[in-house]
Amino acid sequence: MSDALLSSDDLEAALRAIGAERYHNLHPFHRALHDGKLNRGQVQAWALNRYYYQASIPAKDATLLARLPTAELRREWRRRLEDHDGDAPGTGGVARWLRLTDGLGLDRAYVESLDGLLSGTRFAVEAYVHFVRERLILEAIASSLTELFSPTIISERVSGMLRNYDFITPETLAYFTPRLTQAPRDSDFALAYVKEHARTVEQQQAVLAALKFKCGVLWSMLDALDYAYVVPGNIPPGAFRPS
Amino acid sequence: MSDALLSSDDLEAALRAIGAERYHNLHPFHRALHDGKLNRGQVQAWALNRYYYQASIPAKDATLLARLPTAELRREWRRRLEDHDGDAPGTGGVARWLRLTDGLGLDRAYVESLDGLLSGTRFAVEAYVHFVRERLILEAIASSLTELFSPTIISERVSGMLRNYDFITPETLAYFTPRLTQAPRDSDFALAYVKEHARTVEQQQAVLAALKFKCGVLWSMLDALDYAYVVPGNIPPGAFRPS
Repeated sequence: MSDALLSSDDLEAALRAIGAERYHNLHPFHRALHDGKLNRGQVQAWALNRYYYQASIPAKDATLLARLPTAELRREWRRRLEDHDGDAPGTGGVARWLRLTDGLGLDRAYVESLDGLLSGTRFAVEAYVHFVRERLILEAIASSLTELFSPTIISERVSGMLRNYDFITPETLAYFTPRLTQAPRDSDFALAYVKEHARTVEQQQAVLAALKFKCGVLWSMLDALDYAYVVPGNIPPGAFRPS
Repeated sequence: MSDALLSSDDLEAALRAIGAERYHNLHPFHRALHDGKLNRGQVQAWALNRYYYQASIPAKDATLLARLPTAELRREWRRRLEDHDGDAPGTGGVARWLRLTDGLGLDRAYVESLDGLLSGTRFAVEAYVHFVRERLILEAIASSLTELFSPTIISERVSGMLRNYDFITPETLAYFTPRLTQAPRDSDFALAYVKEHARTVEQQQAVLAALKFKCGVLWSMLDALDYAYVVPGNIPPGAFRPS
């Protein structure tokens, strides 16, 4: 990576290049998931572990919300909380994720207890929340930019899973539909913010590192799943065991 | 796990039972390492990743040191910093770990840069530091109790590695020798502290959960290594690639 100051378009290109190399649509577990190579227990393990990520996103967003300096920025970021937490019980992204775990036959209290979570999932998700708490606001916003790449992965996931698994229905995948419009809206804002505010070499490097960090969060979650539930014999002590 | 108050001896037995089920001497990567099943590049990956754990232990201990309320407790905990950071350049546990990465042919600046680290290693190690910062002092001390089990794993590791790898010498394993006396001294203190101070059911449950958490830190580090460097084709983007 060059240490020269980038134009804002070149910064965007560098961000997109990170996604092209490191976004988790390239991970073997994602490919196996959408290609129909997994059994129901493996899909359960994915949904159970990913629940912790989904359930922690509002905590991540509230952490950043508490640090934002203007009403304008806070209003923008507050929308993310509304998307994930909804306006009433049973609404919002986290509740929709539970329809997926319900539909896969997982006990809701067990899912919410986090008892069966992989340590690798827990640590990756918590690293994301800590990052947003501890780093520059610019870095925290940049770490959300994986959403630039999410419409593609969502399309692949939804069409592949509906085609390949008889235990998956459009209703159980209800989480993903609103994300197809929410994610571009959110990433448009975050990208514009980053392009405007990363004005020094150090800030641009920090922004690029933040996106790499976040790609590492998502990638390592799939590493942990693939190791525990696809490679035979590796479910860690205490983790969810498909029946 | 029962919810009754345990005697201090039963609490110790419950802690030892957690180690018997969850300590990473039971992990397939540990067994492969000491049985000589790994090649030099895989041992390099282990030493490189474990370096971040070793280098973060003084930060973990200093974090707890800053929270301890009495000179007596701080003196006790300060010894751990002395063990790891030494009294002069080139002394202490972290410096001895670098003799291992040197002896394995890894560039020291590359190791210290953390550039090739697995995200799974990074997040597990940082989870440990955050745990010690954020939880009760009782839980932070309990999380160190994996050292109760470390003399066994060190003996297995040292004898197995010396026997099975021609690129490993007693000098490169110099890190481990002092740990055989330091770890029991430290864990004797921590065990006595926990047995004395965990006086309610809630405190005892928190202590047991803290040890499970820490076992998960060490276990998930080996999950990440085994997945990336033993299962073929899984080295994540940006991570160390053996030459």
